[in-house]
Amino acid sequence: MQRLGVLTSGGDASGMNSCIRAVVRKAIYHGIEVIGIKRGYSGFIEADMGPMNLGSVADIIHRGGTILHTARSKRFMTPEGRALAMENVDRFGIQGLIVIGGDGSFTGASVFHQEHGIPVIGVPGTIDNDIAGTDYTIGFDTAVNNVVDAINKIRDTATSHERTFVIEVMGRNSGNIALSAGLAGGAESILIPEIAFNLEDICSKLLSGIKRGKLHSIILVAEGAASGIEVGKQIKELTGFDTKVTILGHLQRGGIPSAFDRILAARLGAKAVELLMEGETNKMVGVRSGEVVATSLDEVIGKPSSISQDMYQLAKVLSI
Amino acid sequence: MQRLGVLTSGGDASGMNSCIRAVVRKAIYHGIEVIGIKRGYSGFIEADMGPMNLGSVADIIHRGGTILHTARSKRFMTPEGRALAMENVDRFGIQGLIVIGGDGSFTGASVFHQEHGIPVIGVPGTIDNDIAGTDYTIGFDTAVNNVVDAINKIRDTATSHERTFVIEVMGRNSGNIALSAGLAGGAESILIPEIAFNLEDICSKLLSGIKRGKLHSIILVAEGAASGIEVGKQIKELTGFDTKVTILGHLQRGGIPSAFDRILAARLGAKAVELLMEGETNKMVGVRSGEVVATSLDEVIGKPSSISQDMYQLAKVLSI
Amino acid sequence: MQRLGVLTSGGDASGMNSCIRAVVRKAIYHGIEVIGIKRGYSGFIEADMGPMNLGSVADIIHRGGTILHTARSKRFMTPEGRALAMENVDRFGIQGLIVIGGDGSFTGASVFHQEHGIPVIGVPGTIDNDIAGTDYTIGFDTAVNNVVDAINKIRDTATSHERTFVIEVMGRNSGNIALSAGLAGGAESILIPEIAFNLEDICSKLLSGIKRGKLHSIILVAEGAASGIEVGKQIKELTGFDTKVTILGHLQRGGIPSAFDRILAARLGAKAVELLMEGETNKMVGVRSGEVVATSLDEVIGKPSSISQDMYQLAKVLSI
Amino acid sequence: MQRLGVLTSGGDASGMNSCIRAVVRKAIYHGIEVIGIKRGYSGFIEADMGPMNLGSVADIIHRGGTILHTARSKRFMTPEGRALAMENVDRFGIQGLIVIGGDGSFTGASVFHQEHGIPVIGVPGTIDNDIAGTDYTIGFDTAVNNVVDAINKIRDTATSHERTFVIEVMGRNSGNIALSAGLAGGAESILIPEIAFNLEDICSKLLSGIKRGKLHSIILVAEGAASGIEVGKQIKELTGFDTKVTILGHLQRGGIPSAFDRILAARLGAKAVELLMEGETNKMVGVRSGEVVATSLDEVIGKPSSISQDMYQLAKVLSI
Repeated sequence: MQRLGVLTSGGDASGMNSCIRAVVRKAIYHGIEVIGIKRGYSGFIEADMGPMNLGSVADIIHRGGTILHTARSKRFMTPEGRALAMENVDRFGIQGLIVIGGDGSFTGASVFHQEHGIPVIGVPGTIDNDIAGTDYTIGFDTAVNNVVDAINKIRDTATSHERTFVIEVMGRNSGNIALSAGLAGGAESILIPEIAFNLEDICSKLLSGIKRGKLHSIILVAEGAASGIEVGKQIKELTGFDTKVTILGHLQRGGIPSAFDRILAARLGAKAVELLMEGETNKMVGVRSGEVVATSLDEVIGKPSSISQDMYQLAKVLSI
Repeated sequence: MQRLGVLTSGGDASGMNSCIRAVVRKAIYHGIEVIGIKRGYSGFIEADMGPMNLGSVADIIHRGGTILHTARSKRFMTPEGRALAMENVDRFGIQGLIVIGGDGSFTGASVFHQEHGIPVIGVPGTIDNDIAGTDYTIGFDTAVNNVVDAINKIRDTATSHERTFVIEVMGRNSGNIALSAGLAGGAESILIPEIAFNLEDICSKLLSGIKRGKLHSIILVAEGAASGIEVGKQIKELTGFDTKVTILGHLQRGGIPSAFDRILAARLGAKAVELLMEGETNKMVGVRSGEVVATSLDEVIGKPSSISQDMYQLAKVLSI
Repeated sequence: MQRLGVLTSGGDASGMNSCIRAVVRKAIYHGIEVIGIKRGYSGFIEADMGPMNLGSVADIIHRGGTILHTARSKRFMTPEGRALAMENVDRFGIQGLIVIGGDGSFTGASVFHQEHGIPVIGVPGTIDNDIAGTDYTIGFDTAVNNVVDAINKIRDTATSHERTFVIEVMGRNSGNIALSAGLAGGAESILIPEIAFNLEDICSKLLSGIKRGKLHSIILVAEGAASGIEVGKQIKELTGFDTKVTILGHLQRGGIPSAFDRILAARLGAKAVELLMEGETNKMVGVRSGEVVATSLDEVIGKPSSISQDMYQLAKVLSI
Repeated sequence: MQRLGVLTSGGDASGMNSCIRAVVRKAIYHGIEVIGIKRGYSGFIEADMGPMNLGSVADIIHRGGTILHTARSKRFMTPEGRALAMENVDRFGIQGLIVIGGDGSFTGASVFHQEHGIPVIGVPGTIDNDIAGTDYTIGFDTAVNNVVDAINKIRDTATSHERTFVIEVMGRNSGNIALSAGLAGGAESILIPEIAFNLEDICSKLLSGIKRGKLHSIILVAEGAASGIEVGKQIKELTGFDTKVTILGHLQRGGIPSAFDRILAARLGAKAVELLMEGETNKMVGVRSGEVVATSLDEVIGKPSSISQDMYQLAKVLSI
């Protein structure tokens, strides 16, 4: 291994920069050159790429987003697009590819590997934490902390005349952010796509909380479970409570990466380089039970991990 | 002056606790007793009130919200309600009243003073910064920083495929939060209730920005100017850009108060006590040109201050 | 189990409140009453304790420190002190005790259990993360994020004329905070009590970094390894660089608990209640490989966990 | 005015980037070219400079520090050094110079103007807020918030066995940071270079606070008043209290700039460009009573502003 390529793909996640930094520094430590590929597979096809050195990753460890930018590329889903990317592999002398992203990005990497034989290693970078083969994905901890920060602030403003707050968080198919942030933030109810819910039950709980003297209630809604604005409207109709809605949107992706995400990113990025050095391919690095491990991409792709039922039950018990 | 009452009223604002603390400590310093009145005028009518001491305000200086809680009271708008409050004034031996709140709260205080003769001093506490007689209101600086924090995070996630972000902020009648946060955050466009806007012009600007290589645009919308979700929809229709919407909602009110808000709150709260000691009434304390001053409530009520045209022009110039 | 007692002991850690909240709510959920004991074993001996309900733990989930306060009690190290505590166990009808703290606190709990037979369960709450039987202790993640926040700010101010920053962090016997924060923050050197170091080597590295164009270097020093001020002085002597020293001190313990610490605290607190309900005693709850597990206090006490050599090596590789 | 130069000089301050951005954008808006000069007067002498465009200042509004870097230059204090800088003025076609910095930087600018006739405008950027002619300097509000954030965290950890915290903050000649942060943070005592203090009095106050039930005390020390470590030692000797010391050091300079600092920076930077366009020279822009004003550098240099006695008295009253 004398030269590797690295790209970030799909939705960006805070900590991706820490991972790029680890890839570059680990590679340079072992005398390997690094080609940084911009805008995910789009830049890979369009040769928007170039060498990286220690200076390229100076002072990025604490920046959200990704200095390599990211994109979703339709062309890379076609054999023609991938053939163009392969031309760039040859042109830039890349002997292995590290793809930081999520399920869709890994699919592209795996197909690319099968078609063109180039070694690929995936690094799970997505705020949803729904990738098989790893307990945590890069960006999840920061996203959860961003939501919890919003809950903290909303708690402060709780007053007798504004009783119910609905906060819509990210998660089209995954309730992980809502569940973790709801448990950490002490939400009264957590609505996630994985578990059916009934707004009338939620309203009964609100009403009994008020009777018991509760000054305010916070309801977290994953975007894949319901629209925060709709939930707010219905609660208002069912209870008469003044219900305020917050939609956090993309601010969840950003922000200074948490220490946890940075350490995870450093460990996974360094391991990805090691795997390429050892001649591995078609694998994803992940952390399981605290250890950095590698899993075949075939066992990862299309097999999103599910939420923890234990945590869901715990959140329910603690929100009495 | 041997005993004064203090209450927070209307929408809560971060820094109100710092103000309560200053009122209590300043009063105690001068040997004056303090009665804390809960839930604004509601608690005033219902005698939900009691003595405060140094311990009552220990470790609240850095808490958002208000330990006295706040409410909007319809009963206090009636002579009967105010008569009940006056009974409590007598019962608790209150010789002067400090009202921390906004325009509506001051109206109540002023009428109460006229009807019952009790000295009242207003302290401007509202996130909107639209009170005449003061350059700043308590809670505004924190609210603006909360919005700017959201913009910071959204900036991080700017990528080639997600170009336009719409952030709806508070301000039904006032564009102050949107304007200050937009200037501080480097927003491309700022939509406020005070100034007519044209979404087609805004989209033209977006398009020319993209042509020039701009990777992303942030549009701040005061809730009184338009619905963030509507603006997002229309921009998407007019430009085809993937437009993401964030609605910050009540998190703007909360959060740890900024240093600026705490110092403002301390100065205004202490001055309010001084004014009562000097026999003043029907006045609001405020800060003008860096000095703490008193203005007659008659010059304040119903006369919201307007936005700074200079700052609006500056925001435009800097967003080229 | 009809009534349990809970206390926090030793150095406080952010997240202890989230744990107290979980203990109280989990217990109430199962119909168990909770007695909150103030100031650790001191309040236990002095009967500074009383019943807790849902209201006792309202709005504490996001507060640093511990509402039960904490202390180190010399009297509890004596049979007489423990006998007094046992009188309070009887007086308040406590049938099981949950101790949130570190190694010293667990020793007290274990001896108390042996002498008086009352079931005790330990919950690891200490910023040092050096307790056997758990991968993480409550407060560690927040402490590391506090240090990383300081590093972020110091990075911003890096300029050509101020090249070297020394940051002293907590850790008398443990380098965990320094190591994790150093890896997350991208420190050039990390000095910890577990591993011998040589300031001349560190200075050589600084000098070669400067030669290579590095604008600044950050050196983390665990208080148990060296004095930050001494290290600063010696680096200045050896290199001539203007070296600035920050000593973070107790701010590392405080701050709003991170999402990670709150979730950990909730899980461990709830599990502690479950263990008491199941008739267990003399155990510590912990998280291993993502699972909440129980370990005999005998396997925990006096057996501090050591730093991760892998992480130390990784930090070295990435700081080239 | 067709081309202006801009540099940052002296100690860096958070918000300098927002100011650079405003200078560049305001100039470009008016068709003026901008030359960015690196490392203050050092880069000015060494021709470390080049054109800036909109892209140069993209996404810097929220970064601490200064993208132009800063330095203290001894050569610029000599006529020879300034002559070399003048050669670069001619070489790069600079017709006016904007210097963002403090007193020393303004002295250099003023002498340079007198010797070589080139128009110069100063912008006050220093965390100390001790420049005449302006109510606020860029970086002060952020620095104060950084200190207050530390106080917040230390408050959390206040417990019965750790009563006294000493926090050393910046300010060799100025107590402004200590005074504002102390008032905002509710410090019990504030030690500043401008006002003599007596540690025995401070200890008496500590002791009477403890008697009254105060759980903890926070003492802020400006570095110019005393050494935090020394103060800690003496308090421990005089009272026997366990006294913990934090030295914040350079983290005060950094961090994401506050909204206040960014707005101030935008207004002052834009005004500096306007002044150059109007043919002004040898002036400093500042904000007084909320208005952006210009003051002759002759009235600014060597005349540091003093602390507010009112605020000092208020801090004393509120710390009873």
